[in-house]
Amino acid sequence: MDRFQHGGNVHESPPRGGWLDFSANINPLGLAPEIHRVIQKAIESIVHYPDPEAKELRKAIGEYYCVPERNILLGNGASELFYLFFHTLHPRRALIPVPSFSEYERAALAVGCEVLYVQLREAEGFALDVEGIGRQIKRGDAVLLGNPNNPTGCLISPQEILYLADLVEERGAWLLLDESFLQFCADEKRRDSHHLSMSHSQVITLESLTKFFAIPGLRLGFASMAWGLRKRMETGKDVWNVNHLAQLAGKVAFKLSGYRRESRRLVAEEDAFLLEELQQLPGLKPFSPSVNFILLDVRGTGRSSTDLVKAMREKGILLRDCANYPGLDGKSYVRMAVRTRGENKKVLEAWREILL
Amino acid sequence: MDRFQHGGNVHESPPRGGWLDFSANINPLGLAPEIHRVIQKAIESIVHYPDPEAKELRKAIGEYYCVPERNILLGNGASELFYLFFHTLHPRRALIPVPSFSEYERAALAVGCEVLYVQLREAEGFALDVEGIGRQIKRGDAVLLGNPNNPTGCLISPQEILYLADLVEERGAWLLLDESFLQFCADEKRRDSHHLSMSHSQVITLESLTKFFAIPGLRLGFASMAWGLRKRMETGKDVWNVNHLAQLAGKVAFKLSGYRRESRRLVAEEDAFLLEELQQLPGLKPFSPSVNFILLDVRGTGRSSTDLVKAMREKGILLRDCANYPGLDGKSYVRMAVRTRGENKKVLEAWREILL
Repeated sequence: MDRFQHGGNVHESPPRGGWLDFSANINPLGLAPEIHRVIQKAIESIVHYPDPEAKELRKAIGEYYCVPERNILLGNGASELFYLFFHTLHPRRALIPVPSFSEYERAALAVGCEVLYVQLREAEGFALDVEGIGRQIKRGDAVLLGNPNNPTGCLISPQEILYLADLVEERGAWLLLDESFLQFCADEKRRDSHHLSMSHSQVITLESLTKFFAIPGLRLGFASMAWGLRKRMETGKDVWNVNHLAQLAGKVAFKLSGYRRESRRLVAEEDAFLLEELQQLPGLKPFSPSVNFILLDVRGTGRSSTDLVKAMREKGILLRDCANYPGLDGKSYVRMAVRTRGENKKVLEAWREILL
Repeated sequence: MDRFQHGGNVHESPPRGGWLDFSANINPLGLAPEIHRVIQKAIESIVHYPDPEAKELRKAIGEYYCVPERNILLGNGASELFYLFFHTLHPRRALIPVPSFSEYERAALAVGCEVLYVQLREAEGFALDVEGIGRQIKRGDAVLLGNPNNPTGCLISPQEILYLADLVEERGAWLLLDESFLQFCADEKRRDSHHLSMSHSQVITLESLTKFFAIPGLRLGFASMAWGLRKRMETGKDVWNVNHLAQLAGKVAFKLSGYRRESRRLVAEEDAFLLEELQQLPGLKPFSPSVNFILLDVRGTGRSSTDLVKAMREKGILLRDCANYPGLDGKSYVRMAVRTRGENKKVLEAWREILL
């Protein structure tokens, strides 16, 4: 397995009827009809360049997160913004908890930045040792944290984030908070860090909009940060990086309060259902999910994660083999998405066939 | 006018009926129905990530240009690839003829690269002095050339390009050839430089696919280069930079031989028509076009380019004021797109109203 390979690629030799994809963590509700409709109506308008200012989209995002428009940087997905951060700001070292989303590290390595792993321990439920990481932060460092963290699902509390935000501010380091899954949390508004990127010049809060709004194929993400910092990062990329259809989708997305409510309800309900069902399967140890994915410790099955993911693949189901995550042991962890009840029952049935 | 501002933004306060956009150089045939259809059918599939390998698209491009798939790097528009080049390869200096597309310079400045302007002279029809630029190339430099050049429309001959390709190879410099408009030329195949990026490890040929296929709102571009170089540049960005709909559009696009033929015929015919008509207008001096845009020297009107572009804007027509191009005098040049006969007649009528 390639070091930076992600979940299954649904475009690669799909079986008849397509893959049942539990490897990517996309909103199980699927594409909102309102987003489908706005794209359908706008197809002819792709003959024009996208709005380089993307004013209306930044306005919609700013209103939802209570951030001034001028503090919002838009990305062709949140991933683009990680690379842009490293390309334009060249931090001295990247402090990255492991396991976490591998693009943090890949983006750091893209500019030859030294990477310092901070090991999260299974015995502690993979919780971040905030004071421990705090002791290591030096001037010019960048700390990259997922909240919640992918693949563990661990959340960092607002108090802990504030502690780190103050610390990087004092020491002249950077704090990048990746809140790409936080919209799935009912208490998102209590947890999100955008107010900290306004009060702290060294803090950047990033979000993908592709997971919650189920538009990963369209690409859309953003980050909030101090105005001067945004200006610096804007000059590091071309002005048309967010395509016109993604801009339209994003504008509509923030109006979808019913879709948001229903998504959160569904994910909370299916989290509870899957957790209970998975706990009853022999050899599987699921970690308590916070959003729309669950990490499984599979060592009790006596089989490797790669072996199990392969067996699932033969049944037309894609899971995320965590064998290539630094900080895990290369054989005992699988991540699966949380989907609709019908799909979740299918994956449970497949687990039973493999394990019983 | 902002130093790096481009043509008019059609999304900015459009008049009733929308702008008649002669400021962006997009294929006047508009979106091919086949591309419209493939996007329409694929909307639901944006719930999946784009294919990170984009194998089928690279295959289609590779077949058209006779370049192996593994030598093709895909971009979220060609512009992204200019920034990626500077971010990942950090050339010592950028040698840029002026006037030319301002993103070359903006991308160079994004990494603090020194920019050396090479002045093109109106008296010589803005033709590139190939030997002159050759004498200035030193180890580690990057030479950026548009073929044809934007906004002048000047083509560089295959012999001249080969001369420069050999030179950068000998001296350990880079040659970036931007052939984003070359598909509009009937003799594209005789002129394109992709074979040189295969034979020369220091030569990169870039193309936007947004102009010829009228999909600037969707974003798509590519570059051909040595395999090792492509690998280096791939690591500088995330793997999902080309959205799924753009991948599908690109795959269909290279099959559209009828659309290609008709686009070239239309542009050649309208180039000739507009050139003749514009020459008869008092004070306008059009430069002979090679593709789908025409540069006008307006000093004979006694009015500034900014003034004339504003007068056109009041008539609902967007033109490209060349006042912010380095290498031009800041007041005497306007660029206009070449569009369908009906639209071209409207812009000629508007010129008459303003000038007569």
